[in-house]
Amino acid sequence: MIIVMANNATEQEIEGVIRRIEDEGFKAHLSRGVEKTIIGVIGDERRLKEVALEVLPGVEEVIPILQPYKMASRSFRADRTVIDLGDGIVIGGERIHVMAGPCAVESREQLLTAAEKVKAAGATILRGGAFKPRTSPYSFQGLGEEGLKILAEAREKFGLKIVTEVMDIRTLPLVAAYADIIQIGTRNMQNFDLLKEVGKVNRPVLLKRGLSATIEEWLMAAEYILANGNFNVILCERGIRSFETYTRNTLDLSAVPVVKHLSHLPVVVDPSHGLGRWKFVAPMCRAAIAAGADGLLVEVHPNPAAALCDGAQSLTPENFGAMMDDLRRIAAALGRTL
Amino acid sequence: MIIVMANNATEQEIEGVIRRIEDEGFKAHLSRGVEKTIIGVIGDERRLKEVALEVLPGVEEVIPILQPYKMASRSFRADRTVIDLGDGIVIGGERIHVMAGPCAVESREQLLTAAEKVKAAGATILRGGAFKPRTSPYSFQGLGEEGLKILAEAREKFGLKIVTEVMDIRTLPLVAAYADIIQIGTRNMQNFDLLKEVGKVNRPVLLKRGLSATIEEWLMAAEYILANGNFNVILCERGIRSFETYTRNTLDLSAVPVVKHLSHLPVVVDPSHGLGRWKFVAPMCRAAIAAGADGLLVEVHPNPAAALCDGAQSLTPENFGAMMDDLRRIAAALGRTL
Amino acid sequence: MIIVMANNATEQEIEGVIRRIEDEGFKAHLSRGVEKTIIGVIGDERRLKEVALEVLPGVEEVIPILQPYKMASRSFRADRTVIDLGDGIVIGGERIHVMAGPCAVESREQLLTAAEKVKAAGATILRGGAFKPRTSPYSFQGLGEEGLKILAEAREKFGLKIVTEVMDIRTLPLVAAYADIIQIGTRNMQNFDLLKEVGKVNRPVLLKRGLSATIEEWLMAAEYILANGNFNVILCERGIRSFETYTRNTLDLSAVPVVKHLSHLPVVVDPSHGLGRWKFVAPMCRAAIAAGADGLLVEVHPNPAAALCDGAQSLTPENFGAMMDDLRRIAAALGRTL
Amino acid sequence: MIIVMANNATEQEIEGVIRRIEDEGFKAHLSRGVEKTIIGVIGDERRLKEVALEVLPGVEEVIPILQPYKMASRSFRADRTVIDLGDGIVIGGERIHVMAGPCAVESREQLLTAAEKVKAAGATILRGGAFKPRTSPYSFQGLGEEGLKILAEAREKFGLKIVTEVMDIRTLPLVAAYADIIQIGTRNMQNFDLLKEVGKVNRPVLLKRGLSATIEEWLMAAEYILANGNFNVILCERGIRSFETYTRNTLDLSAVPVVKHLSHLPVVVDPSHGLGRWKFVAPMCRAAIAAGADGLLVEVHPNPAAALCDGAQSLTPENFGAMMDDLRRIAAALGRTL
Repeated sequence: MIIVMANNATEQEIEGVIRRIEDEGFKAHLSRGVEKTIIGVIGDERRLKEVALEVLPGVEEVIPILQPYKMASRSFRADRTVIDLGDGIVIGGERIHVMAGPCAVESREQLLTAAEKVKAAGATILRGGAFKPRTSPYSFQGLGEEGLKILAEAREKFGLKIVTEVMDIRTLPLVAAYADIIQIGTRNMQNFDLLKEVGKVNRPVLLKRGLSATIEEWLMAAEYILANGNFNVILCERGIRSFETYTRNTLDLSAVPVVKHLSHLPVVVDPSHGLGRWKFVAPMCRAAIAAGADGLLVEVHPNPAAALCDGAQSLTPENFGAMMDDLRRIAAALGRTL
Repeated sequence: MIIVMANNATEQEIEGVIRRIEDEGFKAHLSRGVEKTIIGVIGDERRLKEVALEVLPGVEEVIPILQPYKMASRSFRADRTVIDLGDGIVIGGERIHVMAGPCAVESREQLLTAAEKVKAAGATILRGGAFKPRTSPYSFQGLGEEGLKILAEAREKFGLKIVTEVMDIRTLPLVAAYADIIQIGTRNMQNFDLLKEVGKVNRPVLLKRGLSATIEEWLMAAEYILANGNFNVILCERGIRSFETYTRNTLDLSAVPVVKHLSHLPVVVDPSHGLGRWKFVAPMCRAAIAAGADGLLVEVHPNPAAALCDGAQSLTPENFGAMMDDLRRIAAALGRTL
Repeated sequence: MIIVMANNATEQEIEGVIRRIEDEGFKAHLSRGVEKTIIGVIGDERRLKEVALEVLPGVEEVIPILQPYKMASRSFRADRTVIDLGDGIVIGGERIHVMAGPCAVESREQLLTAAEKVKAAGATILRGGAFKPRTSPYSFQGLGEEGLKILAEAREKFGLKIVTEVMDIRTLPLVAAYADIIQIGTRNMQNFDLLKEVGKVNRPVLLKRGLSATIEEWLMAAEYILANGNFNVILCERGIRSFETYTRNTLDLSAVPVVKHLSHLPVVVDPSHGLGRWKFVAPMCRAAIAAGADGLLVEVHPNPAAALCDGAQSLTPENFGAMMDDLRRIAAALGRTL
Repeated sequence: MIIVMANNATEQEIEGVIRRIEDEGFKAHLSRGVEKTIIGVIGDERRLKEVALEVLPGVEEVIPILQPYKMASRSFRADRTVIDLGDGIVIGGERIHVMAGPCAVESREQLLTAAEKVKAAGATILRGGAFKPRTSPYSFQGLGEEGLKILAEAREKFGLKIVTEVMDIRTLPLVAAYADIIQIGTRNMQNFDLLKEVGKVNRPVLLKRGLSATIEEWLMAAEYILANGNFNVILCERGIRSFETYTRNTLDLSAVPVVKHLSHLPVVVDPSHGLGRWKFVAPMCRAAIAAGADGLLVEVHPNPAAALCDGAQSLTPENFGAMMDDLRRIAAALGRTL
């Protein structure tokens, strides 16, 4: 941590800051420049962050130097995290995995049809929401446990793994009993109590980036899960909020290489939510793979025009199949498989 | 709802859209322009929103016409909502109320000192967090029930009302038992399960705007509470996320007149979180009042440099007192009291 | 400037950075922390910024300490800049000045009517564009020199000063010959060649903040003008681009106290462009004054429904007059006049 | 254009709006819904946009239906625009072209070395700024005409085409005399006078997206150039401003398929400016190609640590060469060449 003193800070103020730093158990390191005096703090600044050094007399600015996350950081763990879902399905390795399926489980028939089609096209993980976070209280809110049961049936029938969202601590045991991967949605990325509970569960977690979360905040949300004991976290970029309105959100694909630089956790991309229009999903899936993503989350619906949720961004099974062929070629060009 | 057909849409595609609209129980109204054909939908479009008309062949765009919220809308309720907290404290009336206190309850002494000072300066409601949503799992997370008890003691002692945050459905009954106003924090604005539960509680709710929530989404979050039976919702603007980094967030004061135009609910402003630096809190409190806010939420700490949370944005009791004098003059200039 | 070395930086890399700093004529100051080694640079870092120290081996991050602007900074000039337009009209002093008039000069009659009305209501400066930056090449582009002549006539007739926009270096001499204040529009805030030329002209400049300009970039744009010799710069906040679409832009009123903290230059606010809807202009004018603005820029049109440009955000003379009465009361409450 | 009337609009107000529409020479088409009455306008609404229908009594909202651009639109031109630079270099065709070189021309030696290296690695177009838009007036501003001469020498020597920026109408003839492609920088995207002049020049134009420009505004800027007679416009996505600060900007790759959907113009991507850190340039170049870009603009410097401008985001020739090999494989996977 670096404390920048104001140009007109007095000697007494400088000494006051140094004394405070030392009182907190840190060492201070003074450096007088031509215009500015700065004080370096030596010790683990994460603990010192609690202290509002900014309000001490004469302080102009406090600049943190260390990343606020520890366990999510690459310096904490030299090897990349790989998450083994069983049956040879490993996230974060050489093979890219595609998680596909409808936004919401609407019926047994809809889900089983979707599962059959995405399996045939090469997906290894089935997505589908049983509990749905909806902007409107008047929209379809999901089938609940009935939806989870249908997902489990599809898993049995087609040999797919299942990723599904948990919204509420009360239903976490239920969701954890059915899911292979528990999804934390974008709106719950900083629902800290939920993160803590998910951190105590023995199930891999897919953590979506919040709509307006910086990469640092996203890694801090992962840190909540890791710090509670669950190390199997998959990060999922799904678009951030910007001023552009033609697409629903702005898919930040640069987050893929950045997260791989800062963290050991695997990263997947969900272009369906970021774009909101199915026409642009395939090119952005291609781009995500080329950017280095470890997987994709894609909405596929047997009949998008009849979907109860997010039909506009869902691929038909035919479009999904054609896209998968392209993705395989790009993966191969990069020395990976899919 | 207006459906804009693509320039090259065929007659068959136009008929397909009309048929679908009618199948859903709505009336379609065709209008052929020079370049575009558009189809108006007659009926309550909120229900039709579930249907992904965008994916029907020939459709270029679907434009909603109605606001998606009902109960939160001014057309639902002609009079402004006023919320009576008892003892003559009414939010949404002619008198502006100031909610002040520390970010977090840290100790009995800290809170009682803060309470005494803010009361003396004219605040009517005491703020203080017992459960704290923190970006880092390593930061102080609040005193929990112990904090609520201290708040209750301050209420007794100084005749203040209490506003405090709930983060978790499991502790909602506890928080509701102590609080005069239950706060939903910015990170939980779209924690829909929590909104539903708060909607079933008989306590006024202060609903902070999400960091990247549009005004429409914010009113939809209020709609969740209203639709579950709790009509006593106070909206709180607290800064949105923009590209500017000098201030912590960008306080969107235009939300005050806009919300008053669109909704009957009262609006208060929290400049402390939006700015993140105490020096700018007083001018923005003045501006919030001038923009028409019904109240303020302000962080005041007896000793900001020793605060366990958000000290940098906290006013000292002295600064708070001086500010209150200015605010009273501005309120009077606008024909209100404070 | 602080250089943060990577955790695994070698001694050789640390020495390499120090050598490079010294080669550039600066002094290096080494500080070894528990996790990180940091190197402070002593000397005027503004010059060193040209050097890409980030790419030297072992460097993790380069953190500037000094503000990049000099002349625009408060440390450069202790007193506030006041700009004397003659006839007792001084921007930046105790009196708040209102600049009002139509978006564009459309005709002699339109402008003279507007001028008469805004003068009667208390405005001291007349606004009106003769050269208009329009998003569409098919929109009305302004009357050009004819518009300037009409503005000059209104100045004569009503004793108002004139503020009008320059878009093009080629017409700068013409605009400077007519205007009392030359306006640089939001889209030209980083048209650096235009800034340089305006810096050589002996006329006050009103510099609008760019749509996505940080406060630092805005002050750097002012620095271009100051560094070329023109010290009479008025900063104008007019709304920044955010994700919110209900208002045209998001008016960042916190920029008012922030700029006053960082710079000696006066600041005015233009709520008309930031909001885009006339209904919200009056509350935000009130708020701007309460936040400490030195003036306002407001669109007033004798007949908004017939305006060739931005009618939706223009006040009628009647609404403008009523608003001015409110503003006077708020100014008085703050110990200022208007 | 659709005019939505307020719920409480009177018959007289509805008639007033219809009369106004008809007075302007359009046809009105009335549609009465359950909650709302809407009025469709039949005719070319682009002309009607000048009229502030929003301020007519009883009007709640005015919703445009047509895209505001014409010539830039795909409906204007069925075939994709391909831009022939001579010597078999065609932008917008099956072959992807890479434009590479330093941010600024710093010296003859620097540029010739860069040119030789990028040519050897497969680039066909050399980039390099002679006139540099810099945030600070104290930064290196480019070599001016001397820089253009060095670029021309490199063209001769290595058989590369040249893209270089114009900042000022006064130097446009000079830049146009040297450049094969004239670049309009991000800060000048809405410098409308410059756009008009560039529209009259017989040289291809590379139009960078503004930092906070919507895709619609970007296409409107292209429209200025097209409407003035120059049809050879290449659009260049280079990152937009968002709240994320780890990368300099947020590269919006979804703009590639979106622009290809809306317009016939070719699109290239500049990841160097969007990211600001060379480490992330290669993955984003790969992603841009996979998203469907027609070309890339990449900063390559023989010695980034010695660069006078943007060294931190420049690739070394070695890294550039390695990246080009990857890009060729991805292009081949997509059925294109590079």
